[in-house]
Amino acid sequence: MVEADFSVASDAADRAREADIPHSLVVRFGMDRPLRLDAGIDLAPFQIAYQTYGTLNAERSNAVLVCHALTGDQHVANLHPVTQKAGWWETMVGPGRPIDTQRYFVISPNVVGGCMGTTGPASTNPATGMPWGLDFPVITIRDMVRAQAMLLDHLGIASLFSIAGGSMGGMQVLQWCASYPRRVFSALPLATSTRHSAQNIAFHEVGRQAVMADPEWRQGRYFGESTSPRRGLAVARMGAHITYLSDAALHRKFGRKFQDRENPTFSFDADFEVESYLRHQGSSFVERFDANSYLYLTRAMDYFDLAADYNGVVANAFRGAETRFCVVSFTSDWLFPTPESRAIVHALNASGARVSFAEIVTDKGHDAFLLEEPELFAIVRGFLDGAAKARGLKIGK
Amino acid sequence: MVEADFSVASDAADRAREADIPHSLVVRFGMDRPLRLDAGIDLAPFQIAYQTYGTLNAERSNAVLVCHALTGDQHVANLHPVTQKAGWWETMVGPGRPIDTQRYFVISPNVVGGCMGTTGPASTNPATGMPWGLDFPVITIRDMVRAQAMLLDHLGIASLFSIAGGSMGGMQVLQWCASYPRRVFSALPLATSTRHSAQNIAFHEVGRQAVMADPEWRQGRYFGESTSPRRGLAVARMGAHITYLSDAALHRKFGRKFQDRENPTFSFDADFEVESYLRHQGSSFVERFDANSYLYLTRAMDYFDLAADYNGVVANAFRGAETRFCVVSFTSDWLFPTPESRAIVHALNASGARVSFAEIVTDKGHDAFLLEEPELFAIVRGFLDGAAKARGLKIGK
Repeated sequence: MVEADFSVASDAADRAREADIPHSLVVRFGMDRPLRLDAGIDLAPFQIAYQTYGTLNAERSNAVLVCHALTGDQHVANLHPVTQKAGWWETMVGPGRPIDTQRYFVISPNVVGGCMGTTGPASTNPATGMPWGLDFPVITIRDMVRAQAMLLDHLGIASLFSIAGGSMGGMQVLQWCASYPRRVFSALPLATSTRHSAQNIAFHEVGRQAVMADPEWRQGRYFGESTSPRRGLAVARMGAHITYLSDAALHRKFGRKFQDRENPTFSFDADFEVESYLRHQGSSFVERFDANSYLYLTRAMDYFDLAADYNGVVANAFRGAETRFCVVSFTSDWLFPTPESRAIVHALNASGARVSFAEIVTDKGHDAFLLEEPELFAIVRGFLDGAAKARGLKIGK
Repeated sequence: MVEADFSVASDAADRAREADIPHSLVVRFGMDRPLRLDAGIDLAPFQIAYQTYGTLNAERSNAVLVCHALTGDQHVANLHPVTQKAGWWETMVGPGRPIDTQRYFVISPNVVGGCMGTTGPASTNPATGMPWGLDFPVITIRDMVRAQAMLLDHLGIASLFSIAGGSMGGMQVLQWCASYPRRVFSALPLATSTRHSAQNIAFHEVGRQAVMADPEWRQGRYFGESTSPRRGLAVARMGAHITYLSDAALHRKFGRKFQDRENPTFSFDADFEVESYLRHQGSSFVERFDANSYLYLTRAMDYFDLAADYNGVVANAFRGAETRFCVVSFTSDWLFPTPESRAIVHALNASGARVSFAEIVTDKGHDAFLLEEPELFAIVRGFLDGAAKARGLKIGK
């Protein structure tokens, strides 16, 4: 295990090195402990980069796994080593926060296929000494979860007190409960679904085509050729970003306001504030994310279809589960709209699981799960309090 | 006036020639009759390509102007000279159709900024002998309408019996009623809005960035360099196409079905049918559409804001109008959702105009106005029948 180092990566080369030598804890699995992938391939060696917050209690019973979304990473509640920005869930995870690190031991791994230190297409392929690129095998949500289970084994954590995540993170939550029902006492799948919809697959495909249309992508071999598909990845991010918000939120934030002027320029400059904002979203994203990782992780989400592994019946995935669930959706989320969460609830009901459900009224769209949403915080806090009581959880060592 | 020629363009060079010498009727305006643009520029010379169907009656009172949407053109009800496919509104326009060419004289012009024979960025700039490219001035919906009014003047048509169009076509309908209220007896704005929303501007900006990110775009000078931003334009089209449909329609048509196989390939091939479908939409679009035109027309839609010209009050745009309106929206249209049409109706009510409104239940999304929608056909037919009676319209010569 490598010790965490919270110093900050200073340039693009450092950023690329994050894939192999991240500013995180790392566990390395050798040739003798391969990750068996759904694609039928054994990935070995491989490594998982992760962060932890809080302290594991003596009973090893207060661990909470936080699963990140498509463009997230393990830096949940600390300064991000590349962007130098706050962690992506600092409002939710920390001392006194709903996922209270004074009570719980939080583990957040970077997913397999990611680019922040867990093995993925940006990592060095030991067979070539070069980044894997498209030689990296296509991975699934179940592969991510299988790797996380190996991490927990390594840490000596037999059972999670809870697991939480939104969007792709929520897919991992659901897969955990299906794959390892006895290892999960409680679960918080937020703004997610048991399968990626045709529309969402379509949006992802546009993003992938934008990356692959960039001549600097070079069939994924840009590392070796000193190129970078920045423009393609930025376009992909811009399009995706719209789907994370809502029409109402865009209207509230930007409306039809012009950027630094009163009248249109009659040009193709970023006349409107919303254009300028989107361009910024695109260009800042490429500073911190690997284009091939974007292809692999969107593909994993597209492939996710929990029912397909259980004879087409989602409820079968949760049959006999003793996990306590809290499902949350957001009214203005049109990427993972409330009916998708209701389908999860119906499946859990059909399987006899213990489940509560909340639909939170907000205009912030899909991204609401990442944002300042007091009602969400209250629900998560209350749900975990109840679960802790049921578990008889002792706090501290 | 050049006579129509319905023979079919056989190759890409022919397609490019459509911009100057289209397979359509053409009216050319010389240096003495410039088109005054909102950008403050006089465009001269310029030309309008258009199609007509049916016969103008002796009173010249049965003319219906059909306005096309972003990627449409003048080929409403005849074989398209480039794609060799049916006209885009053959279900609506023709003998015995709701816009019945046995009763009405239908005129459909290609818009200014288009690429099918009306002057636009693909047309030859007389100053250089090369296509205009980005030297073409940025145009607005009002510029399109102003050009159409010049066409009607040329044809000796003082007043339209009706005007119809969906989406960007509907914007032209609304602008016509605001700019020339006495020239429009009845109007059918379908699936449209009085102003483009922040979300729609955002989607357009992503499309433009996709085109401009393609190195073959060459700052719009691809004609002179024998390049073509095909990949960028295809990505733009793929993204836009999703917004024209609905989640429900995509689910009904494709769901999560794999393309020609039972199981995923664990690759970046078009595994899902919806991916294959989108790729086809992208690649077929670039065969018939000019990338720069796409930039100009999306920009024109983004700039559209009828209230802005009337002290922020849309109703003022229609004050005193005697036009009869029929406003139509579709339940699953999330690009121009029903509240946008309701806002049109409220403005018309506030201005004292005569207006009927229908929201049609369908899962086909924004594209519903182009598709087989019996309820839409019945509404258009009924509305035009009533208007014809009110106008005392005599049929035939």
